[in-house]
Amino acid sequence: MKNNPREKYDLLTGRLEEISRLGGVMSTLHWDQEVMMPEGAGESRARQMAALAGVIHEKSTDPALEDLLDGVEQADEMLFNPHEWCNIQEARRDYDLATKVPKSLVQEMAELGSRGHFVWVEARKAGRFGDFAPVLSRFIELKTQWARAVYPEWEAYDANIDPFERGMKMAELTPLFERIKKELIPLVQAIAEKPAPDTRFLKGDFAVEKQEALGRRISRDMGFSFDKGRMDISVHPFCGGGHPTDVRITTRYRTDNFIESLYAVIHETGHGLYEQGRMAEGRDLPVSESLSMGIHESQSLFWERMIGQGRPFLSHYLPVFAEAFPASFQGVTEGQLYAAVNACQPGLIRVEADEVHYPLHVILRYEIEKGLFEGSIQVLDLPEVWNGKMRDYLGLVPESDSQGVLQDVHWSGGAFGYFPSYTLGALYACQFYRALVKARPEVPEEVARGEFSGTREWLGEKIHRQGRLHNAGELTRHVTGEALNPDHFMAYLREKYGEIYQLN
Amino acid sequence: MKNNPREKYDLLTGRLEEISRLGGVMSTLHWDQEVMMPEGAGESRARQMAALAGVIHEKSTDPALEDLLDGVEQADEMLFNPHEWCNIQEARRDYDLATKVPKSLVQEMAELGSRGHFVWVEARKAGRFGDFAPVLSRFIELKTQWARAVYPEWEAYDANIDPFERGMKMAELTPLFERIKKELIPLVQAIAEKPAPDTRFLKGDFAVEKQEALGRRISRDMGFSFDKGRMDISVHPFCGGGHPTDVRITTRYRTDNFIESLYAVIHETGHGLYEQGRMAEGRDLPVSESLSMGIHESQSLFWERMIGQGRPFLSHYLPVFAEAFPASFQGVTEGQLYAAVNACQPGLIRVEADEVHYPLHVILRYEIEKGLFEGSIQVLDLPEVWNGKMRDYLGLVPESDSQGVLQDVHWSGGAFGYFPSYTLGALYACQFYRALVKARPEVPEEVARGEFSGTREWLGEKIHRQGRLHNAGELTRHVTGEALNPDHFMAYLREKYGEIYQLN
Repeated sequence: MKNNPREKYDLLTGRLEEISRLGGVMSTLHWDQEVMMPEGAGESRARQMAALAGVIHEKSTDPALEDLLDGVEQADEMLFNPHEWCNIQEARRDYDLATKVPKSLVQEMAELGSRGHFVWVEARKAGRFGDFAPVLSRFIELKTQWARAVYPEWEAYDANIDPFERGMKMAELTPLFERIKKELIPLVQAIAEKPAPDTRFLKGDFAVEKQEALGRRISRDMGFSFDKGRMDISVHPFCGGGHPTDVRITTRYRTDNFIESLYAVIHETGHGLYEQGRMAEGRDLPVSESLSMGIHESQSLFWERMIGQGRPFLSHYLPVFAEAFPASFQGVTEGQLYAAVNACQPGLIRVEADEVHYPLHVILRYEIEKGLFEGSIQVLDLPEVWNGKMRDYLGLVPESDSQGVLQDVHWSGGAFGYFPSYTLGALYACQFYRALVKARPEVPEEVARGEFSGTREWLGEKIHRQGRLHNAGELTRHVTGEALNPDHFMAYLREKYGEIYQLN
Repeated sequence: MKNNPREKYDLLTGRLEEISRLGGVMSTLHWDQEVMMPEGAGESRARQMAALAGVIHEKSTDPALEDLLDGVEQADEMLFNPHEWCNIQEARRDYDLATKVPKSLVQEMAELGSRGHFVWVEARKAGRFGDFAPVLSRFIELKTQWARAVYPEWEAYDANIDPFERGMKMAELTPLFERIKKELIPLVQAIAEKPAPDTRFLKGDFAVEKQEALGRRISRDMGFSFDKGRMDISVHPFCGGGHPTDVRITTRYRTDNFIESLYAVIHETGHGLYEQGRMAEGRDLPVSESLSMGIHESQSLFWERMIGQGRPFLSHYLPVFAEAFPASFQGVTEGQLYAAVNACQPGLIRVEADEVHYPLHVILRYEIEKGLFEGSIQVLDLPEVWNGKMRDYLGLVPESDSQGVLQDVHWSGGAFGYFPSYTLGALYACQFYRALVKARPEVPEEVARGEFSGTREWLGEKIHRQGRLHNAGELTRHVTGEALNPDHFMAYLREKYGEIYQLN
């Protein structure tokens, strides 16, 4: 190639934009599959998505990309600005990840992923972990091979964490989770000894149209742009869509409970604001993309827990709830609502857990995944290991594997190293919120007036528009002045639940 | 290549399936754009569709396709069955069409198409044909160049008709349309002299949910599978979706008129049944695809006009209408409904025209397009030519170009040669219906009982499952025992409207 580095950079970004746009198409297909697609189209859709995935893979592993990367990486540092260097580094990383793995391994993982899902569905239905164990064993082997191919110098589990939470390693996670576990177990035990808040008024008969109107109102209040997004219904709430100008959140409705659906809307709106808030330039380039799973989750949890489950928010919306559902909210006070929304209870199922118990579910899975990759836990022992940890951490033992080791979809697709992001997100959310209130002490009063623009704008400036310019560690220091620090999360829980449950 | 012809055929169909699947993705994106996409996503979606279109173009013009085609075309005739030969011939045709046109021309047409659309929108808004004239002139030039590139031995307008109605040429169309025009003009004049049927009861206040339920019921009665399809709302009704297992029809609702929306549902369901009814094998290969625009339109018009606007259908559904909208249908007889649904009236706008006037709108456009390509009509004279023909054929003159020469979107995208398919579809529909009733005289009684499976199955066997195995001429002979023959259509109109308007 005779192009100079600047020309090569332009050719490179042209290719990156093409890949990003095709990825946006894939996201729209995913959304459609979950929200719109008729049932009978499953097979044809799978073939269409496979064809598109094949094209994206071809484009992502095109040797011409490597030529361009080689050409720009040798350029003078001053030739490109930090945004441009970020695009170059991200492109290199993606190219290496896509090309370092032998094709046979990629194919076997894809095949096992789709077969494994069906095996898991059936095993969970039957409550028989033994039926799923061979899939899990094979996935551990394949993901170990994958780790060796992409990060030969790393521990295999560290390599598996990396795609979800870049740069996060067991060396940091293990002591972090040990500490949280040590402090959380006595906290949940103390809570369990206290009387539970009255949550009966949260049960009732809530018309779906009223729930939907309420969800849309609050999402809009938070700043979600329905001109650049949608809200629909799906079996599991999620945030998808193909572009920052096309962000699609979903929820689901139960007529006997509106609060679950509403907090799903708030949670997904948190994700959606991150996507809609991405930097205005280079939106089809890596620099503008969200940073990591944990940071994404920090945004949803920030809005769901730090804002939505807080007193100021509930004081503002109690009259709105009462207007929508007068029969349920007659005579309910702000304090009652706050206690009910934040009621804690140990349970077997991670996705139903409250913010106090949730980290224990995550830590249990982290310890098991780590043990599986290190060889200190054997797949066939998993039900026993799972149930033992559940008893130790949450004081509960599942009656069947369906409610225990088989409850999560993640392992059936080979997604190891994903769970820690949920708790990292909660830690980031709390630390970010404390930094926000320090910088803008007026936030709780604003929220109590239903004003969210100050908060959203702060998140936009500090996080959303930063894209991938910094890694999560740097970002945390920029936003909060210190590294990730679990003190904030633990203090928040102790303070909040100390008050609600009158612990000391 | 060392593969034998059979192996080459398999490689070829693998590539054709990939292209077809990516095309299905594009169709889903189109549907989403019209039905779901938030307004703010227009620009990003256009870029994503352009990226996908680029990929499909790359795949369709890959020289490896030509190698495979060369290899299989030389094979012994007996080596492949008719389905396989059809795939080979279709692939050759598509490859030639995609590769014979210089890239610069493709790009200029694409650019003019998207710019031209906006120019047209503004010109129509302002009622100023002069603003749009340069786009139209340039498109005629480009499409003439295009014709020379793909069918150098043909007249340019014949080449432009071909993508919509393969093999149909002016030599056949001109006398056909001359005959229809000559007989239709006196017919519409005779109708205009008679009193109009009472249509007042078709105006009223029709709740959208009731209209939707009615549309779904009738679509389902006709045999549309909602397990392999959807029905939604869009500005202009259409039938889209990405696969025979994922067929998506749309309609729109007006609360003061339910019949328009309902007939849009019936029309689009006719298209949808064609797609859902395609042959079970090879659905991602050309042989299974719909044959032509005209044949597609024959299916929608068959259901809309031959079935839906017929007496048996209306006699079955009158009680259903009356149950849904009791206030409007009190005391309305079957004969009144039949006359009202089939009321004729000349109008300026093609898309609002009834089946008697519609062909005159098409013939007017055909004559203009033919004249533009042959040079006998000049672009700048179009308003005058248009208005003169409107006066001669329909007795009306538009007050503004917006209601005249600027009314259709087609020319703004360079779609010349498309209009004839609408009237060809009407002719096919009528001829097919007469063949059906000859073969199955019980059809009108079945329809009067709301039974459509016999009709649908006949269409399925004779047309839908034939795919592209025969050209439209052969198909017409197979289905009806004769070539396309306008006698049927003219006799149908004279008979039907002779009765409704008591002509003789």
